[in-house]
Amino acid sequence: MNRHAYGLILAGGRGTRFWPRSRRRSAKQVLNVVGERSLIQSTVDRLRPLIPPERLWVLTNDYLRDTIVQQLPQVPPAQVLAEPAQRNTAPAIGLAAHILHSVDPDAVMGVFPADHVISKPAPYRAVVRAALAGAAVGHLMVVGIQPRWPETGYGYIEFPRGTRPGARQAPAEVRRFHEKPDLPKARRYLAAGHYYWNSGMFFWRADVLLEALRRHLPRTAAILAALPPFGARHFAARLKQAFPLCENISIDYAVLEKAPQKHGIPAADFGWSDVGSWNAVWELRPRDRCGNAIGEHDVCLDAQDNFVDARGKIVALLGVKGLIVVDTPDALLVAARERAQHVGEVLKELERRKREDLL
Amino acid sequence: MNRHAYGLILAGGRGTRFWPRSRRRSAKQVLNVVGERSLIQSTVDRLRPLIPPERLWVLTNDYLRDTIVQQLPQVPPAQVLAEPAQRNTAPAIGLAAHILHSVDPDAVMGVFPADHVISKPAPYRAVVRAALAGAAVGHLMVVGIQPRWPETGYGYIEFPRGTRPGARQAPAEVRRFHEKPDLPKARRYLAAGHYYWNSGMFFWRADVLLEALRRHLPRTAAILAALPPFGARHFAARLKQAFPLCENISIDYAVLEKAPQKHGIPAADFGWSDVGSWNAVWELRPRDRCGNAIGEHDVCLDAQDNFVDARGKIVALLGVKGLIVVDTPDALLVAARERAQHVGEVLKELERRKREDLL
Repeated sequence: MNRHAYGLILAGGRGTRFWPRSRRRSAKQVLNVVGERSLIQSTVDRLRPLIPPERLWVLTNDYLRDTIVQQLPQVPPAQVLAEPAQRNTAPAIGLAAHILHSVDPDAVMGVFPADHVISKPAPYRAVVRAALAGAAVGHLMVVGIQPRWPETGYGYIEFPRGTRPGARQAPAEVRRFHEKPDLPKARRYLAAGHYYWNSGMFFWRADVLLEALRRHLPRTAAILAALPPFGARHFAARLKQAFPLCENISIDYAVLEKAPQKHGIPAADFGWSDVGSWNAVWELRPRDRCGNAIGEHDVCLDAQDNFVDARGKIVALLGVKGLIVVDTPDALLVAARERAQHVGEVLKELERRKREDLL
Repeated sequence: MNRHAYGLILAGGRGTRFWPRSRRRSAKQVLNVVGERSLIQSTVDRLRPLIPPERLWVLTNDYLRDTIVQQLPQVPPAQVLAEPAQRNTAPAIGLAAHILHSVDPDAVMGVFPADHVISKPAPYRAVVRAALAGAAVGHLMVVGIQPRWPETGYGYIEFPRGTRPGARQAPAEVRRFHEKPDLPKARRYLAAGHYYWNSGMFFWRADVLLEALRRHLPRTAAILAALPPFGARHFAARLKQAFPLCENISIDYAVLEKAPQKHGIPAADFGWSDVGSWNAVWELRPRDRCGNAIGEHDVCLDAQDNFVDARGKIVALLGVKGLIVVDTPDALLVAARERAQHVGEVLKELERRKREDLL
């Protein structure tokens, strides 16, 4: 275990596609959408052998902070921070790098989304270990995952032609990042073999990241540099003033695209899913022989390929196919599975109707 | 108003096709599936100008009796009887005829299902008035309703060829009763013009019905005749012993099919529906321009021809078509509208699983 390894868990997302289960105060990352533990608890669990909870930091928002502190009793509460404003990943990661650098000038940080599922933790940890090692020697590191199908919902990392998956080799140079492709392009990526899914995990030394920020995002870098030391009396108040002034930009655009050199681990799949919609949950859950992922007491008659998430009641499906049914005490969603990506539109409609109680 | 007119409301049904809203203790007839009042309350309301609540009797079961007494405060509680066993309509109507005949030897009784919807009460009352008049002179009377489409879910009454609808004429002779037809036959009935939907309402003098029972269902007639007078000390206990011994048969089979002469009112439609399934409720409810019958706070996005019944929560439909969604605190039904007739199969499955709590 690298004693300079720290983890930053990004847990500020809203998970609108998981409405009505996901709400501002109970977003996807604190829900147990797969398994018994919440997604953020699973994230902490699987990192434990590499980065103990005492060296984990969490960035979230005011709605979720209390819940996360409760769910992660081994992470020191002072290390669970609510961002004063939503400013995408670059300011959040920059802030964390600042704090970690002040805590440990040799800090190596891994950045982990709080809401992904990884079904094979052992090979996952081998990849994280390799990525931390690459970061320790000064690389900006990403993790690519060998694609299993021509997914159009993920970004891709282009490695040099002929790159084979494997965590044991030296970090591979990253040639380019590619945004979510259309299907023909995704098929070409898959066939080419050296395009990998972008897992959204990053690894670097805190000082290396701060230097990259100074170069590529100088205004935000200056705002963060002017903050008092973490733990100082006025830190929270000053952060509240300063953070909203940071640029609203992702670390991908702000740093990775611009940095002349970046490296990555071209990983074989470790059962990774970003669980992007209820449809992804349907795929991850056990299903009966008719393809229904339902509760143990639910009843299916002539029903196929449905997903049901309802607590404390039974659901009966009769003659229906390909539905998502998610029940909560104050809201019920019934959607076609192929529309799972558009659940956020329901929220937009509720926002228009000023139904704050349901957001 | 005929002061010898009495009403018998048959309210012992279970309404299995209205699960999960309809349960043993809250069956269809005590629910407000259409409008503000329950179906049985509406039945009493629309009869009021012809038969006051004090002359109404209700036959139901032990599960529903208390609720019905509460819902119908103007009907004397002693006149709301729980059948000791389910024995179809012949014993129930025979029992009521016995009681009414003992109360008033000139009693004329109308028999009304508790769970039908009638949207035009004025023409309905004209028909009931005519039927009571026909019954008063000794006829066994039924009410036929001019069919609006070739319905295969109703029985038909065949009147003499050329019979025109109208309540003001003398009662027409009934030639035959026909069971639920298949579609080609229903189309022929519709085209012929003298076949009418059987509304399930009956009218006769109590003494005439008792005589018909003695002739056509002698065993049950004898059992009922041996009961002590209604109101006597041992009436309830004796009824409990005797009623289960009665034959399990409908009044249609037991009496009407066998009686050499029966008459009926060939009525123009008075907005009658037997509300046989959630699909019928969808047809009766107001719908938005996409054909959705939903609650005022519900959200439809690319959703068509759906029916939603959920209390105290909002329902969001996304990209779905032709669904029935009925939510209750302990059970949720999601069914294809064309399967509305088969909702009872869900109950059978729950019975197999011994889920008495959900029946």
